[in-house]
Formats: sequence, structure tokens, C-alpha cells
Amino acid sequence: MSDRPNTPLLDLVNRPADLKQFSDAQLHQLASELRAETISAVSVTGGHLGAGLGVVELTVALHAVFDAPRDKIIWDVGHQCYPHKILTERRDRIRTLRQKDGLSGFTKRSESPYDPFGAAHSSTSISAALGFAVARDLGGVTPEGLGDAIAVIGDGSMSAGMAFEAMNNAGHLGKRLIVILNDNEMSIAPPVGALSSYLSRLYAEEPFQELKAAAKGAVSLLPEPFREGAKRAKEMLKGMTVGGTLFEELGFSYIGPIDGHDMGQLLPILRTVKARATGPILIHALTKKGKGYAPAERARDRGHATAKFDVVTGKQYKAPSNAPSYTSVFGKTLVDEASRDDKIVAVTAAMPDGTGLNLFAERYPSRCFDVGIAEQHGVTFAAALAAGGLKPFCAMYSTFLQRGYDQVVHDVAIQRLPVRFAIDRAGLVGADGATHAGSFDIAYLANLPGMVVMAAADEAELVHMVATAAAHDDGPIAFRYPRGEGVGVDMPERGEVLEIGKGRIIREGSRVALLSFGTRLEEVRRAGEALTARGISPTIADARFAKPLDRDLILDLAANHEALITIEEGAIGGFGSHVAQLLADEGVFDHGLKYRSMVLPDIFIDQASPRDMYAVAGMNAEHIEAKVLEVLGVATIGEKRA
Amino acid sequence: MSDRPNTPLLDLVNRPADLKQFSDAQLHQLASELRAETISAVSVTGGHLGAGLGVVELTVALHAVFDAPRDKIIWDVGHQCYPHKILTERRDRIRTLRQKDGLSGFTKRSESPYDPFGAAHSSTSISAALGFAVARDLGGVTPEGLGDAIAVIGDGSMSAGMAFEAMNNAGHLGKRLIVILNDNEMSIAPPVGALSSYLSRLYAEEPFQELKAAAKGAVSLLPEPFREGAKRAKEMLKGMTVGGTLFEELGFSYIGPIDGHDMGQLLPILRTVKARATGPILIHALTKKGKGYAPAERARDRGHATAKFDVVTGKQYKAPSNAPSYTSVFGKTLVDEASRDDKIVAVTAAMPDGTGLNLFAERYPSRCFDVGIAEQHGVTFAAALAAGGLKPFCAMYSTFLQRGYDQVVHDVAIQRLPVRFAIDRAGLVGADGATHAGSFDIAYLANLPGMVVMAAADEAELVHMVATAAAHDDGPIAFRYPRGEGVGVDMPERGEVLEIGKGRIIREGSRVALLSFGTRLEEVRRAGEALTARGISPTIADARFAKPLDRDLILDLAANHEALITIEEGAIGGFGSHVAQLLADEGVFDHGLKYRSMVLPDIFIDQASPRDMYAVAGMNAEHIEAKVLEVLGVATIGEKRA
Repeated sequence: MSDRPNTPLLDLVNRPADLKQFSDAQLHQLASELRAETISAVSVTGGHLGAGLGVVELTVALHAVFDAPRDKIIWDVGHQCYPHKILTERRDRIRTLRQKDGLSGFTKRSESPYDPFGAAHSSTSISAALGFAVARDLGGVTPEGLGDAIAVIGDGSMSAGMAFEAMNNAGHLGKRLIVILNDNEMSIAPPVGALSSYLSRLYAEEPFQELKAAAKGAVSLLPEPFREGAKRAKEMLKGMTVGGTLFEELGFSYIGPIDGHDMGQLLPILRTVKARATGPILIHALTKKGKGYAPAERARDRGHATAKFDVVTGKQYKAPSNAPSYTSVFGKTLVDEASRDDKIVAVTAAMPDGTGLNLFAERYPSRCFDVGIAEQHGVTFAAALAAGGLKPFCAMYSTFLQRGYDQVVHDVAIQRLPVRFAIDRAGLVGADGATHAGSFDIAYLANLPGMVVMAAADEAELVHMVATAAAHDDGPIAFRYPRGEGVGVDMPERGEVLEIGKGRIIREGSRVALLSFGTRLEEVRRAGEALTARGISPTIADARFAKPLDRDLILDLAANHEALITIEEGAIGGFGSHVAQLLADEGVFDHGLKYRSMVLPDIFIDQASPRDMYAVAGMNAEHIEAKVLEVLGVATIGEKRA
Repeated sequence: MSDRPNTPLLDLVNRPADLKQFSDAQLHQLASELRAETISAVSVTGGHLGAGLGVVELTVALHAVFDAPRDKIIWDVGHQCYPHKILTERRDRIRTLRQKDGLSGFTKRSESPYDPFGAAHSSTSISAALGFAVARDLGGVTPEGLGDAIAVIGDGSMSAGMAFEAMNNAGHLGKRLIVILNDNEMSIAPPVGALSSYLSRLYAEEPFQELKAAAKGAVSLLPEPFREGAKRAKEMLKGMTVGGTLFEELGFSYIGPIDGHDMGQLLPILRTVKARATGPILIHALTKKGKGYAPAERARDRGHATAKFDVVTGKQYKAPSNAPSYTSVFGKTLVDEASRDDKIVAVTAAMPDGTGLNLFAERYPSRCFDVGIAEQHGVTFAAALAAGGLKPFCAMYSTFLQRGYDQVVHDVAIQRLPVRFAIDRAGLVGADGATHAGSFDIAYLANLPGMVVMAAADEAELVHMVATAAAHDDGPIAFRYPRGEGVGVDMPERGEVLEIGKGRIIREGSRVALLSFGTRLEEVRRAGEALTARGISPTIADARFAKPLDRDLILDLAANHEALITIEEGAIGGFGSHVAQLLADEGVFDHGLKYRSMVLPDIFIDQASPRDMYAVAGMNAEHIEAKVLEVLGVATIGEKRA
């Protein structure tokens, strides 16, 4: 897709230790080459571009000054780690990023000792770094040793409560610990919240403080004899620097703001910190997401995530889509419902684009709440909106809703408040891999008393489920749908309100009933066609609800078929487990039923296309077909051999 | 137990509106009477005493100035709400607190319109208040109307990330919102963390600022014409007041610190705020937990939770215990294991006493980490301790571990790090009710790949499971155990390491197999005795593991019995669901098996004794017996009638 850039210095680097041979000027040059290599690699693979470009200089400076893997460099979220991977023995595989059997798009412990603590969800890095710092001081043993612990965290991630909890604990423990606040005023979406305004004020008057600020912070790191004179210098600087009171109040020494693209600032400051630090230190570095690549700098999301692209023009290669994405169907349908009901409001945790709520926010800005990376607060805030007589839709990815689980239980379910959970990225998600899979929500929601749990079988069903959720006022309701495009069905003019707890028969058949919950329905249909060709005509049903179950439908299917198989895009404990409980309670198993529950297997599945991931999971049409044949005792092994 | 106090003014109060008739001096007197009534009530019921005594004046002042239920007063955690309940139409039932069919020990929406948003877990109040404020401004409709939104939150609760997320969002939205920081330097345990140190510095020089501070904060609330002169006054005061920079940086007006027991400060400040506030305001009130009752003030936990007691002497009436509590068995066993293995460390989220880690902290202070009310951070911190070569035990209640669920998935399970989860308060917990029930952990942990999930059947088993967890280095492991005393079995000298995934037969029988997971085993034994008396001799087994399942044991039980019944102290989706999945996959159901899974029912069960709660759940010995008879088709209805 693009010619490889010319990278003479980078070609000399296999591991971080190789950086020690370079002069500061060469490190500056190395950063340019690393930027070019990163752009080149992502042009081939697609992925997170902007974040990595923003930390190229920081990556070089950290590896030049510190000694990974003994020193633990922990990249928050990890999507900015491509330059880090290039410098840490993975350049040979960098063009396999996010591909099947390739490098992860995030940091990953099992991939490299240079990734001491993997990530993908935000705001975990300070907790992780503090854990390493404590382990170091308590004699913990690891193959690589335990040196400095360094968290690199964005301003968006810093706004999450978890980061605050970690800062609060770190300030209290007082261990040597380095936190680099990578302040690019941009997480996935523009930042929100008071912390963000605070950070802006820190450099409102001058873009950054150059070495004056660094000097101020560094003073507190100096050993005693040097302090007296230094203190006077600090006093002189005091009026000129902006300070970082908030962090200092939490027990951190504050250094900054500094220019995170200026090696002339980064290197001396990191060297000083390495030489002198005794307690927790926060270095506030200003960077630019997408830095150094004009198409990314120009993009609204600063090149946050990109398809494969042409390096010269920046033009992305996107496959034409045959059907709208579930995300956009949700967004448009909610706008439509909201146009008829002014009580509908929406909550997102820093994902207006990812959840499709950007459409809603444009149309109804005062009714859309981006609470920041704050799922805990977001869920409870939504609960109170419901208690206040509004109709909140809380739109979160399945995997991120895990962050607000206690709030779903304690504030929503126990109080039976009608919060509508729009759960995107249900099931396996593709290139983002195991950390982003929406595997557990059916189980962790359907076991909550009073919760209604739906899954859309296709994009038209999603329209109905949005309408159903809007109309449902008696307690909480959730509907899940996957990443990616729908299947291209005709779309209804307007959603209809589904009867709670009622599924639908897709086709009548005999011997075996296939009961699908969610978008595996398409694979079930295909399996049905293949089976019909073999003379087995299955009944196919769409459960629509994991809770409450369509008891009549399920008992009827069980009574009239030799075998009943459930399929869902979720782990054990969810829909199939509820069906099994019903069948057991009703005594259906007493007299025999060939019952099987196809769920995600008991492994975390690495990134690949969703189709490939479902192949690993054994949940595509051919696996469903094989399961039916196996359960009915129809020999296939001999056939395959023939 | 005690004579009722003399309360002439309080006797005139049925609802908060009745307070409007009183002078400030009378309100002062009313507070004294309310304190006496609170002490008297709790002496009869037991419960949370110290927190309520600390907010008596605040409760009176809030209800005198604001207009509940139109104004929403939201008590964080809710355990300090007894005085509030007395003033809000519930005095007649105050001596039923925490009893079966009585008042909840927390705020509860279904109990009263004066409890607009219930609680029991900490740090939700600011999110809730912000939701009400937004609903008010967007035309939300509730039966009581929507006025001011007021969160009352303790300094411990304020240290949780969720509270920070809410402050961050509230400061950004700028809505009129009142947060009262009830700073008593004491949550359940002494507070930890940098925020706590910060708060202490705010009043380090003077205990509180009296009206000077209030004046400073109030200035910013004054309408424009008055400001000029007021500003000058503010400048004069500036040097004299301590300020609340951290909160101001987050977009709040800060007022304080003030004396939270001085009606002469509380009333004018609340009146000013009510009259003038436009945006978010934080009032920093210093209070004393246990205030005004000497035995509570003297107690190490400031009377946090108490049994029934004698009002005059403060002496608590505690039933003698026959067996050690599971909590203390865990604490002692961990100390014992740690004495032989210096890599063992422990993490608690503000619950050193509740989890039994106080013993560990005393013996090994440098190896015990109280991270504050910060389960998210605590879990990830523990994951990094494991990555750093230590052996962390993360001790949390089942219901609070929900707060760290994403971290269990993302940081522990996906990375397969050997964090040992000691899960106290598994199952139904008694007087704390539905919000504290440990109902969901089996389901939400056992569906995670690589997680080992155990439950102790008795206190000796718990000893073995602590040893097993200490020895288990290949990924995460969890063991759950209930609140309360063990069953009095002989205790082993030292724990033995159990074979992972192996259960045990308790007694051999025929026809029906009862497979227990956890402490229902005792009820199962009793049921077994009753059944034996009827001529049915069941096999009884203790599964020990929900994951990995003891496949051989379960298939053997299924093969050799007419019926198999699982019992667990958890909701659907857990142990029984895993057993059903195994039986289905193995084709056991194909030919018929009377399988039943006894799980917690699909309701939130209100407070009562654990035994009564399990009666509601249908999981005591008599229910197990009845289930066996029903499944085996042995008639009992006629028998009972006879």
C-alpha cells in the first residue's frame, strides 16, 4: 500500500537498550523515523493512529532514559503503543497489528515482557504502576526485575474515577512512582468535565512553561544540601509558573506543563526525575493527537482510529457497506423516538460517536449527556434521571458497562428504575480483540431481578427494541446488538413496541428446534438451509428476550421436538442457562430432551475478523449444522471422509 | 430495654413541614431531642448509630430550611438516615429498624417519598443529586415535584472514584446543586488516602472557620449589586480562611469548613445557599461521628454499628457465639499462611475490620493495603502486585466486588494473574438487606475464562481454601463464604491445599443426589436426616468448586441417581447453570434425569434474619426436603393436611 520510509537510525534499533548509543540529536532524528514507520505500518493495517503519533517523542525519550523491561512502562488504554512496539523487538511484526495471529492493537503481557501490564480499557495504568512500585519495595520477584514504575495516561483517562482512586492511594503511600499526564485535550471525543477545564487553565496564559516549570517541579526532587539555593530560585519562579495545585494536594510533585514533542525538554526532565525522584511525581506533558501527519491533525477525531489508508493523501480504503451499522440504526431510531417524546434523554461515557449518540447530541444537545470516562457515575446519573421523571437511554458498550455493574445492581435494578440500556458491541468485536468482547452482559444482567434483557436479531429488530425500551416504564430494560453492519433487511418506517417476553417463530420445522438470541439468527438460518438440503427441516425461533423468557414458546418447542438447541453471542450463565433452568423446573428433562446450549467457549479469543473469531468459538452456520447432526445422531464423520 | 426520652418538641413533628413553626432556638432544642430519640431507638434495634448521631443537627437544619420531599435530600450510603426517618413520617416505626417487615436501615425509595434515591453502597449521592437537578431543569415530572437537589456525603465516600466522576461532571454542567461534605474523618475505618490528608489540611490551623469562612463562600452567591463591597470583605478575609482549592478547581463554590454541630452556623449558611445559589456548591461541614453519646464517642469505630445496648451504660447485648465467624477464620488463617510466606500481601477497600484483615494489618502492616473506598483501583492494584511477583489476597464483600467487576475481567482474568479473591458476605446477609446481599458473584465470576471459583461449606473448609488460594499460582482464584458464625466443626491445625476442581462425597445414598455449593450444606444435611426418617436416603456431596466443575463426580452422581439437585447461595447463572451445561453437553438429559437447581429466587429480598431471608428464598432444610419429595413424586400435600 505504501513504500517503506527511509529509517537509517531506526534500523539500528532492535531493543530499547540500543537507544543508549544515540546522542540527543540522534534521538530527535529517531523520533522522526519512528513517526514515519508508525504511519507506514498503520496505513497497511488500519488501527489507532492519532494516539501513537502524539507520543512518538515521549516513547523515544522514555526508552532512552529508562531501562525496560526492568523499568515498567505502562501505557494507559494501550492504543498509543505502536511506536513502543516498534522499539521493543516487535518491528518485524508491526504490519500484523490487529490482524488474526498478529500483534495486538493494545499492550499485552502475553505478547512481550516490554508490556508489563496490558490494557485496552482506560484509566488502569496508575493502579498498575503503583502495584509494581509496591511489589518492588516489598521484594517481589519477576523474570525481568522490578525497577521504576511509569504510567503514561491521557487527560481523558485521568478524568475517570479509577485514576483518581489510584492517585489518592499513591499520594498516600508516597512510593517513588512516575505518572506522565499526556494531555492532548482529546480522548476519543473532545474532553468533557471540570478536570479538563482545570487542565486547560494550567496552560491558559502560555501554551507551556518550557524549562521554567520543569525547574520548579524538579526543585522538590533535589537532595537536601542543594535545596536552600534552589528554594530561592523556586520562589522567584513561582509567580511565573502556573502550578498544579490539584495534583500537589493529592500528594504528587507536579512538573509542567512541558512540551511533549520537544526532546530538549523531555530528555532532561526524565533524566532529572530518574536521578532524583523519591515519591510520586506527575509530569504534565502537552501533546497533539495525530502530531506530524497532516491528515490526522486535520481530522475531527485527530486520526483516532482509521481504516487502511494511502500515506500520501490520507485517503482511507473503506469497503462499501451493504447495510447500515447497528450503531447508526440505534442513533437514528433514538432521534426519531425523541422527536415524539421530549422526556427521552441520553447518557454516554465519552463515546458519543462510538455509540451513535452523536446524531442525538446534534439534534438535542441539551438532552444528551457525555459524562466523560465515568461509567459508574453515568449509570447512577441515568438512574436519577429516571427517578426524576425522564426517560434515559444509557448507551454503553457491553464491555464498558462492566465498569458500572454495581450501579446497575444497586441504583437501577434494586430501585426498579426504568433506565434503558443500549448495549453496543455485544458479542465478539473483531480487531479490538478479547478486551473489547461483549461476552458477559447477558449473564450479568439477566440474573438481576426485574431486568428485561433483549437482543436484536437484525437491524429492523433493533428499531423495534428501541421503541420497546422507550415505552417500557416498569423497571429497567436492556437491549444488545453487535458491532458492524446489519444484514440488509427491509427497515420499518417506525419501531413497534414488542410484547415483553414474547419471541417469534421464524420457520416451522420438525425434529430439532433452533432457538436463537441475537444476531446469530442469520447463521442459524444458513444452518437451517444446509440441514434442509440434508432432509432435516429445523424449526427456527428468535427468542428476542432472555428475560423474561417466552415460557410458552420454549415449552412448546421442547414438547414438539426431539432436540432443542439455544444459540447466543455470550458466555455461559446467560440465555441458555435461563432456558435450562426453566426446562429443569418444568420437569422437561425428567423424561429426556436433547438439549444443548451453544455459548461462547471458556477462553478469551484473540483479535481476528468477527467471522474468524466466531469460527474459533464454534458458532458459525457450519458449527450449528454440525451440532444438530451430532445431537440427532446423524453420522457426519464417515461422510466427511468419503 | 430503655425508657423513652422526653421529647416535647419532637412530639409536635410528624413531617418536615412542621419544623417551619420553630424558632432557631427551638430547632437547637429539637436536635437534642432527636439525638435522644435516635439513641433510644437504636438501643432497641441495634444498627448504625455513630453516623446518625453525627448528622443530627444537619438533619434538623436541612429539613428546617429546605422543603422535602419536593427538595431531594440524598444521604450517601444512607446509614446515617435514622434521624431523617424520625422527622419524615416514620417515627412511629423507628423501633422496627432493620427488623423483618420493619424500616430499612438505609434510605429506600419504596419506603418513603422522603427517600428520593435509596442507597447502602457509598458514593452514589452526587450522581443521584445531579440527575435530579438535570431532570428538574429539563421538565421532569414526579409526584412530589422537583426542587433543590442536595447530596450529603462523608469524607470517606468522597474518596471513591465515583464521587470524583460526579463532581467532575457536575462542575462541567454548572447546574444548581448542593453537596454537603460531612467530614468526620472517619468512615467505617479511619480514612486513608491523599484526599483525607488534604481535607485535614483545610482545617489544620483552626478547627473551623466559623462564619468568616461561610462569608467568603457566600460572597460568590450574592447578586451583582451587592458584590462590590462584599468582594472587598472577601479580600480581607482571604488571608484568614483556608480555602477549598481542590473543589473550586472542579467548578464548585466552596463554603467552609464550618461546624456541623452548630445550628448557629448551619441555619444561616443553608438559608443563604437556598436563596442565592446558582451553580454547584460544596459546603464543608466538620462533624463528629457518635456525637453526643459518650459510649459511641469513646468507641474505636465511633459507634459505627452496634448490637442492641443499654442506653445508660452503653453496654451491648451480644448473643454468645458458638463458633468463630467466617470473617475471623479468614483473617486468622491468612495471618498464619503469611507467617510462612512473605510474598503474601492483602488488599482491602476501606473494610479492614469487616473483612478480618485488621488481624493481618496488625501483624504485617507493611503488607496490608487499605486503598480506601476504591474497589476499581483495589482490584487492578492487586493484579499488578501479582504481576510484580507477590501473592495478593483481595478481600472484599461479594456485593462490593461488583464495583470492581470490569477490573476483575480486564486486568485479572484476561491477563490470568493470580489474584486471590476472598469474598465475604456471600449469599443473604440479614439486617443490611437486599443491597448487601452477595447474590451474583458466582455467576459473574464463574463465566470468566481461567477463573477458579470455590465456596466454603463450613469454617474448616474455609481454612483449606485460604491455603489452596495461597498455593494457586496459575491464574485467579476466588473463594466465597457467608456473613456470621461457622457451624462449630473441628478446626484443622493448618489448611491443606485442595485439589483444584474436586468435590467430596459427604454421604452415600440412593435415588437422589444433593449437590451443595457453599454453606447450605448444613441445611442439606438436615434435609437428608429428615428424608432418611422417611425412608429416602439421599447421597450428599459438597462441590467445593463451581469452576472448574468436578466433572467425574457430577456425571457419576447423575448416572447413579434418579434425581440430582444442586443448591447454592446465589442467583441463577452460577453453579447450577454450569452443572446444567455439563449435563446437557454430555447428553445426560437426552435420556432423562430429574435435575433441579435451587438458586436464589428472582426477587430482591428485604432485610430479616438470614434464616428468615432463606425461608423467603425457599432454601432452608424443609424446602430442600420438599423439593426432593416433589421431584421423586412422593405426595406430601395430603400428609400435611392429615
